[in-house]
Amino acid sequence: MDLQRVVESVARDVAPYVEEGEVATYIPALARVDKAQFGIAVRTVDGRESYAGQALTPFSIQSISKVFTLALAMRSVGDALWERIGREPSGDPFNSLVQLEHEQGKPRNPFINAGAIAVADRLVSVHPDPKLAIAAFVSDLCDESITFDAEVARSEAETGFRNIALANFIKSFGKLDNDVPTVLDVYFNQCALSMNCVQLARAVGFLCRDGAHPFGRGAVVTSHQARRINALMLTCGTYDAAGEFAFRIGMPCKSGVGGGIVAVLPDQMTLCVWAPGLSPSGNSAAGMRALELFIERTGLSIF
Amino acid sequence: MDLQRVVESVARDVAPYVEEGEVATYIPALARVDKAQFGIAVRTVDGRESYAGQALTPFSIQSISKVFTLALAMRSVGDALWERIGREPSGDPFNSLVQLEHEQGKPRNPFINAGAIAVADRLVSVHPDPKLAIAAFVSDLCDESITFDAEVARSEAETGFRNIALANFIKSFGKLDNDVPTVLDVYFNQCALSMNCVQLARAVGFLCRDGAHPFGRGAVVTSHQARRINALMLTCGTYDAAGEFAFRIGMPCKSGVGGGIVAVLPDQMTLCVWAPGLSPSGNSAAGMRALELFIERTGLSIF
Amino acid sequence: MDLQRVVESVARDVAPYVEEGEVATYIPALARVDKAQFGIAVRTVDGRESYAGQALTPFSIQSISKVFTLALAMRSVGDALWERIGREPSGDPFNSLVQLEHEQGKPRNPFINAGAIAVADRLVSVHPDPKLAIAAFVSDLCDESITFDAEVARSEAETGFRNIALANFIKSFGKLDNDVPTVLDVYFNQCALSMNCVQLARAVGFLCRDGAHPFGRGAVVTSHQARRINALMLTCGTYDAAGEFAFRIGMPCKSGVGGGIVAVLPDQMTLCVWAPGLSPSGNSAAGMRALELFIERTGLSIF
Amino acid sequence: MDLQRVVESVARDVAPYVEEGEVATYIPALARVDKAQFGIAVRTVDGRESYAGQALTPFSIQSISKVFTLALAMRSVGDALWERIGREPSGDPFNSLVQLEHEQGKPRNPFINAGAIAVADRLVSVHPDPKLAIAAFVSDLCDESITFDAEVARSEAETGFRNIALANFIKSFGKLDNDVPTVLDVYFNQCALSMNCVQLARAVGFLCRDGAHPFGRGAVVTSHQARRINALMLTCGTYDAAGEFAFRIGMPCKSGVGGGIVAVLPDQMTLCVWAPGLSPSGNSAAGMRALELFIERTGLSIF
Repeated sequence: MDLQRVVESVARDVAPYVEEGEVATYIPALARVDKAQFGIAVRTVDGRESYAGQALTPFSIQSISKVFTLALAMRSVGDALWERIGREPSGDPFNSLVQLEHEQGKPRNPFINAGAIAVADRLVSVHPDPKLAIAAFVSDLCDESITFDAEVARSEAETGFRNIALANFIKSFGKLDNDVPTVLDVYFNQCALSMNCVQLARAVGFLCRDGAHPFGRGAVVTSHQARRINALMLTCGTYDAAGEFAFRIGMPCKSGVGGGIVAVLPDQMTLCVWAPGLSPSGNSAAGMRALELFIERTGLSIF
Repeated sequence: MDLQRVVESVARDVAPYVEEGEVATYIPALARVDKAQFGIAVRTVDGRESYAGQALTPFSIQSISKVFTLALAMRSVGDALWERIGREPSGDPFNSLVQLEHEQGKPRNPFINAGAIAVADRLVSVHPDPKLAIAAFVSDLCDESITFDAEVARSEAETGFRNIALANFIKSFGKLDNDVPTVLDVYFNQCALSMNCVQLARAVGFLCRDGAHPFGRGAVVTSHQARRINALMLTCGTYDAAGEFAFRIGMPCKSGVGGGIVAVLPDQMTLCVWAPGLSPSGNSAAGMRALELFIERTGLSIF
Repeated sequence: MDLQRVVESVARDVAPYVEEGEVATYIPALARVDKAQFGIAVRTVDGRESYAGQALTPFSIQSISKVFTLALAMRSVGDALWERIGREPSGDPFNSLVQLEHEQGKPRNPFINAGAIAVADRLVSVHPDPKLAIAAFVSDLCDESITFDAEVARSEAETGFRNIALANFIKSFGKLDNDVPTVLDVYFNQCALSMNCVQLARAVGFLCRDGAHPFGRGAVVTSHQARRINALMLTCGTYDAAGEFAFRIGMPCKSGVGGGIVAVLPDQMTLCVWAPGLSPSGNSAAGMRALELFIERTGLSIF
Repeated sequence: MDLQRVVESVARDVAPYVEEGEVATYIPALARVDKAQFGIAVRTVDGRESYAGQALTPFSIQSISKVFTLALAMRSVGDALWERIGREPSGDPFNSLVQLEHEQGKPRNPFINAGAIAVADRLVSVHPDPKLAIAAFVSDLCDESITFDAEVARSEAETGFRNIALANFIKSFGKLDNDVPTVLDVYFNQCALSMNCVQLARAVGFLCRDGAHPFGRGAVVTSHQARRINALMLTCGTYDAAGEFAFRIGMPCKSGVGGGIVAVLPDQMTLCVWAPGLSPSGNSAAGMRALELFIERTGLSIF
């Protein structure tokens, strides 16, 4: 299969739809992003890369960072991680407090905001400089230096009342070990990582390689852990549209409100698409179309 | 009716039950209060006072303060107050975030924590020094100098993660005009007002006098507003036991986790009972018994 | 106070608003009622009656019947009634199943549909012919023969899927002793009682007379029970607008989707207003206005 | 890979755990099933079959039937099916009414009871004899004559108050086209299909064959539809443990309270395990262990 031709055809055919949806507006740095952009990158299990469109334009990865912090925490903390965080789809919006109240401060899964905050708390407990640890981890995974966008991180902090509420709510149940501001500083920064499609397709490469480093530097996580992250991405990775993604796209995916979506075909390849316009479910509208086109044209799917 | 004999008999007959329930333990200043205490005070519409037990021992009034801040806000803001706060019983616990999420950050009523925080926000907007305004208002109402217990206020702030969550959650819906820390400083302090039964029976006296000041210094609120505060106390004043209170006691009441309960018999008298042990509903256990005995012996009730 | 003049003035001043709201449309017999009707009746504790408008036109009393079945069940079953039914406001719509699921099939109070169905179940258990018992009870209370409207009862049964769901849901928790169809037959019929304002003001007369029969035939319920029914009406009698009613009207009320509302001023009088157009909360729109005018003009209120 | 040896080793190693959990007790026919039973069957994409334990003992397939009715309805109705049924995990128990109330009578997915009832309604609309159609469909799929267990069907009907509630609740939103009793008769009968592990592994064979009939008789559903059923099984097939199943087992699965679980490895094989003892999540406890052992030993997984 000529993946370069496929990604080019996807980029071409998705072009008329690229301005669908609305960019996230809750912080200026996201609100001013030009909607007329689209990128796609694919990286096979043996390291071949294909890309098209604005695949080299950096964007704010936002919730895609939850994949990286989860992997880092699974590596650092092991199964103890699951004492504080569940593994079930939430059935509620990504930033809902309802579920958290019904379940006594234990977030349903690591990909809703509450769960990612609980993961960040674990990282604060085990890493002397958790922000540095995250940046180093992601940089190593994609073999390029990745940094936080300071303006985005600051804006997140200034407007993140819902996330401050979530963190304090978890804390009120005694399920956050560290100070709320310290934990949120990690969380707001991880959301502000700036990466492009090619870097992201590389960085999640370990998920199609049974946990092995994309550039062959040993095991990122165990094979077991890699499968489990994929399972969580499939059931919980795309806010309350996870069922829809599984149904229409059939790949483990994780999306962010910056418009990026990473996807995994185990043993075969990883992908990243990006288009800033979001569907009502908070996932990149053109990105979803592009993934659907991709699986239509390649016949690939985990199902 | 010889009210002094009635309150004495109530104090005597409730004595065997005074250690029922558990004191609030979330802050040290409340946790170390001796459970074996009971006070009762009654003040008639014409100013006669009767009391028994530890009616002169100060305690932390906690949520009873919500009556005073509501009255102050109704006076300062008028009907605009109700744009941000509902008037219905919540059906959920006093510190629930569920209702707030379903109703987009508009608290159900001014007596749940979220509602009182919204009231505090209104006071911050209109009073240059809202804490001073509250202390002055309450002091004037009971004709004695009332102050905040600094240790309680500090402890509330240090452990008030749930309330910090509530305030940030309201803020996330754009329904809090002032800074969260400023608003919560008012809220944590109002909860830390220290008063005794006699002072409280006096201070709520305007509620049995069609809004007139307990010591005759003009109108505290309008007759209309006084009735409405009574109605809110009856339907929402005792956490999720408001129905039970109406059913068994039949008076507008407002309780606090310090163990105090104020009650109103319109046109007749106001009461305050105090016993630190709380029932599972968060209301003073012996206090509820005392109010039930009181209405049994006097035959008084609004129904 | 010249009550006849008051009710006439209320009828006159409410006239411009009589067509507010929408008639209930879920069954034809209600949908075809002419909206341009209004009635008001008052009956004092000593039996004087005043009325105006279409106070003698019969209408479907619907949920007002819940007051009568509750009184009958309290009389027949006593406090055991409360093992199966709560006494708190629900915070949810009158026909909600959510609360029932969270509280394991125990309805929050006897005035939501689920609660009234549970009351009907109790009546089926103790009365050989519960429909006859209800009709006889109400007829005796207003001293006129009251009957069920067969067409309404049949329509309720044919379209009452939500109520069938509620009854089966309670049954699934093992909290309905009798067959669902038997219980619902009682429930659908009680809703189909046809009465006018004067009859209703009389029939609830025991609620302003400490439980004594409106025409002096002994005790309908005890003084204690009468107060408790009033308390329940105030906190739960008007769907999810109970707080609003208490706040604006300040009398225990029970409404029905036929457009009727009964109200009680303990020790003084009972009222019934009727106007078929319903506010979004399911309560008679012009009826609420009329009650507000009435208390404004008379200065009466329980608060 | 010698699948026969694998299934035998799984059966042997799961033996000590076979009596874990509790059998379903809501109907006598399930309650009296001997817990000390276990069966496993595997059928590869090219038709080779391996089995061990009581793989030929028939049991009540219960909710596994939802896979067959869904496939039949997708075939009969096409995409119109999704107007009435969602495709997202529910986050609530399988028989919850809460979600249904919040989403106006549209079940979250076809595998919760409400969703399966909505599917049954579609089948009633398009098949003259829907029960016959279901039995014929399943019999054809496994090439043996499959029948309903009349006692089970009758018991389901007699005790199915929750399901009667669900159906009436959907009907109350106008989202059930046929009579509730007719629809539920189909639903209660489909749950009462009696099959063994070998038959079930065969019957779901089309799900690992891109929709092709397990015995080569053309297309059961399209390739597209087969993938989508697998996706729904993965995200919603095992009550509120779907995340846990994906995480630990990594195969699309559908379970029933009779203790059966079917699982799919696309393009490779289908499985069925059976052990009557249920975990608290309602899924066969030993069955889950067996599936975990199976994937451990074979290294197979979709992730």
